[in-house]
Amino acid sequence: MVNTRLSKLSKVLPAYGLDALALNAGSSLTYLTGLHFHLSERPVVMIFTADHAPVIVLPELEILKVNGLPYRVEPFLYGENPADWEGVFRDAILSLGLDGRRIGVEPRAMRLMEFRMVRAGASAADFPDASGVIGSLRVRKDAVEIAAIRKAVKAAQEALEAIIPLVKIGMTEKELAAELVVQLLRHGAQSEMPFAPIVSSGPNSANPHATPSDRSLRAGDLLVVDWGATVDDYISDLTRTFAVGEVEAEYRRIHAIVQEANAAGRAAGRPGAPCAVVDRAARIVIEKSGYGAYFTHRTGHGIGMEGHEEPYMRGDNEQGLEPGMTYTVEPGIYLPGRNGVRIEDNLVITASGAECLSDMPRELRAVG
Amino acid sequence: MVNTRLSKLSKVLPAYGLDALALNAGSSLTYLTGLHFHLSERPVVMIFTADHAPVIVLPELEILKVNGLPYRVEPFLYGENPADWEGVFRDAILSLGLDGRRIGVEPRAMRLMEFRMVRAGASAADFPDASGVIGSLRVRKDAVEIAAIRKAVKAAQEALEAIIPLVKIGMTEKELAAELVVQLLRHGAQSEMPFAPIVSSGPNSANPHATPSDRSLRAGDLLVVDWGATVDDYISDLTRTFAVGEVEAEYRRIHAIVQEANAAGRAAGRPGAPCAVVDRAARIVIEKSGYGAYFTHRTGHGIGMEGHEEPYMRGDNEQGLEPGMTYTVEPGIYLPGRNGVRIEDNLVITASGAECLSDMPRELRAVG
Repeated sequence: MVNTRLSKLSKVLPAYGLDALALNAGSSLTYLTGLHFHLSERPVVMIFTADHAPVIVLPELEILKVNGLPYRVEPFLYGENPADWEGVFRDAILSLGLDGRRIGVEPRAMRLMEFRMVRAGASAADFPDASGVIGSLRVRKDAVEIAAIRKAVKAAQEALEAIIPLVKIGMTEKELAAELVVQLLRHGAQSEMPFAPIVSSGPNSANPHATPSDRSLRAGDLLVVDWGATVDDYISDLTRTFAVGEVEAEYRRIHAIVQEANAAGRAAGRPGAPCAVVDRAARIVIEKSGYGAYFTHRTGHGIGMEGHEEPYMRGDNEQGLEPGMTYTVEPGIYLPGRNGVRIEDNLVITASGAECLSDMPRELRAVG
Repeated sequence: MVNTRLSKLSKVLPAYGLDALALNAGSSLTYLTGLHFHLSERPVVMIFTADHAPVIVLPELEILKVNGLPYRVEPFLYGENPADWEGVFRDAILSLGLDGRRIGVEPRAMRLMEFRMVRAGASAADFPDASGVIGSLRVRKDAVEIAAIRKAVKAAQEALEAIIPLVKIGMTEKELAAELVVQLLRHGAQSEMPFAPIVSSGPNSANPHATPSDRSLRAGDLLVVDWGATVDDYISDLTRTFAVGEVEAEYRRIHAIVQEANAAGRAAGRPGAPCAVVDRAARIVIEKSGYGAYFTHRTGHGIGMEGHEEPYMRGDNEQGLEPGMTYTVEPGIYLPGRNGVRIEDNLVITASGAECLSDMPRELRAVG
C-alpha cells in the first residue's frame, strides 16, 4: 500500500508544479510511508521528489524506525546537540539539489522549527502550500481505510453505551470524561485518542468546544458528549446529547430540531453534490425553526487519520463529494449562558449516496 | 497567578529587544493566560505587547472562552470561511501597530499556518525566536507547579503498580499499554496523556522511541515501560524496565549498570551546576562499563506543562541549574536487535541539591 501511495505521489507532484514535498512528523507522513513519529523538540522531516528515493532527516536515536523498510529511503541523522541540526538538514536538501526549486509544505502541520531548518538548506526555494497535493491522495478512502473507520465508530459507540448507566447527578464532567476514555480503551481504541472527549453540561454545553470541567451534573442540564476512538490509525468522531433528569421544554425542542437537522444533513450527501449541499440541508432546518443564529459552526468536516481534514461541510464549499470521502454531520444549537445540543454522525460517500457508519440512538435520552 | 505572569512578561519583553510576542494554541499560551485551546485547523493566536492589552485572534465559536477573564483582552473573531481569516489577522496586528517591528515567536510551537497569517499583517516585521523569553518564565517552577508535578508522579506510579500483577507472557505490548492508560485515568490522570506510553519488549525495547506493537511478551524479554500522567496541567515522565521471566546474564548486567547511572545522575543535580554535570555523571558510569556506544541519547530533559522542555541534560549544555527547575534523569543502554534498558526519574532542584519526586523500586523486577 505504501509503495502505491509513494508512486502516486511522484506522479502527482509535477502536475502540481512541485519539485518536492517536505513533510514533518504527522499523519501525512504516516499515510505516505507507514512511519510513526511523534511531534517533539527533535525535528523529523522527509522530503519526497518525483525521481529520487525520499530523504529523511531524523535523530540518531530513531534510526531503527527507518531500517528494513519496503522502499528505499536516504536517512540523514543528527545527534543531541541542536546546534548541529541545521547542517544536517542542509546536507539532506543539497543532496536532492533543491535550492531555488519549489518545495511544497503543509502549513497546517509544519512548524516554524522544521520550516526554518529546511529553508536553511534552500534559501532561494519557494515553499508553496501543498496541502492540496496530499489532500488529493488522502481524501478518498480505500476499503481498508473505511474498514478502520468502521472499527473506530464501533469502539466509540460501545464505549459510550458502557458509560450511560454510570452517569449520575453530582458526578463531574471530568470524572465522566475519564470513565469514557477508560471504556474507549477497553473497547479497542488505541491509547492515543483522536481528541480529548468533550463532556459539557448545563451552561458549558452551550460552548461547542468546551473542555471537561469540575462542574457537577445537575437535574435539568443538557449533557453533550463529543468523543471518538482511533483504531488502526483511523478515527471516529461522534456526538450525542442527553437530558440529565427532566429538562425544560425549550431544550427538548432544540434537541428535536437538531435531530431533524442531523437527519437532513445525513440524507443530503451523494457523489457529485457539493459539500455545501450537506451544510445547507442541515442549516435550513435550524434556520426555519428560528434558531439559525445559534448554529455557529459548519455542519461537518472530513475524518480519516485526523479528526479534522477535508472535505469541509461549509455553505461556501463547492468541492464535489466523491465515493470514499468520509465526514461528519454535526449540527448544533447553542443558547449562550444556558444549554446546548449537538448530534454528530460519521458517513461515507458511496456509489449512489451516503452511508451512515454510526447508528446509536439519536433521541434525547434521559440519564442520571 | 495569570496576572503576575502577564506582568512579568511585559517587563521582560523589552529586555529581550522584542516589541511583541505571538503565541499559538499550546502550553505557553496556557501558562501565560490560563486559556486552553486545541491545536486545530482553525488558527488561534494571541499577541502580547509591553503596553497594550493582549490581542487574540480566534474562531467565533470559541468566544465563550475569552469572556469574563480576570484580565483585559481584545478579541478578533473570524467565521468558518478560511478565506476571511487572513483579513482578521491583519486587523488584529494593525491594531497594535506591529508592522516593521520585532514580533517574537516560538518556532517549536507555531505552525506555518499561524505564522503566515501573522506575517500577512506585518510583512515588514522580524520574527525572532522568542523561546528563550517564555523559557525564562517557565523554567523555574513555583510551589503550585511543583505540587502538580508531584501529583502527576503519584498518579503515574500508582497506575504502574496496578498493572504489574496483570503482566502475563503472551499479552501484547498494545494490550499492556491500553491497560496502563486505564489505570492512569483511574488514578486521577487527566484524559489527555502527556504522551502515549511506550511499552516495548524484546528487540523493540532496544528502540528508545518504540511505539507499542502487536508483539507478545515472551520469557527472556526485557520490558521497557515509559509512561506519565498529566495532573492539573503538569506532567510526569517515568521509565522502568522489567524482566519477563528469566533473562540472560548480560541483560541483568546492563540493567545494573543503568541503575547505577540513574543513581549517579540523580545525585549530581544542584543549584549552580551546569546541566552537563547531570549528563556526565550518568554517562561516565555507562562508558566505564564499556557500553558507552549504546547510550544513544541525552540523560534527561525538563518537564512541566510539556513532556520535553528546558533544561536539557546534555553534555554540551552549560545552562546552570536553579531552584525550581524540574527534569528527568533517564540513562539507557540499547543493544540493537536484542534488548534495551532505561530507568527514568523526575527531580526538582532545591536550595541545596536535587529532590527526586519519584520513588518506585528501580531494581530489575520479574513479571509474567
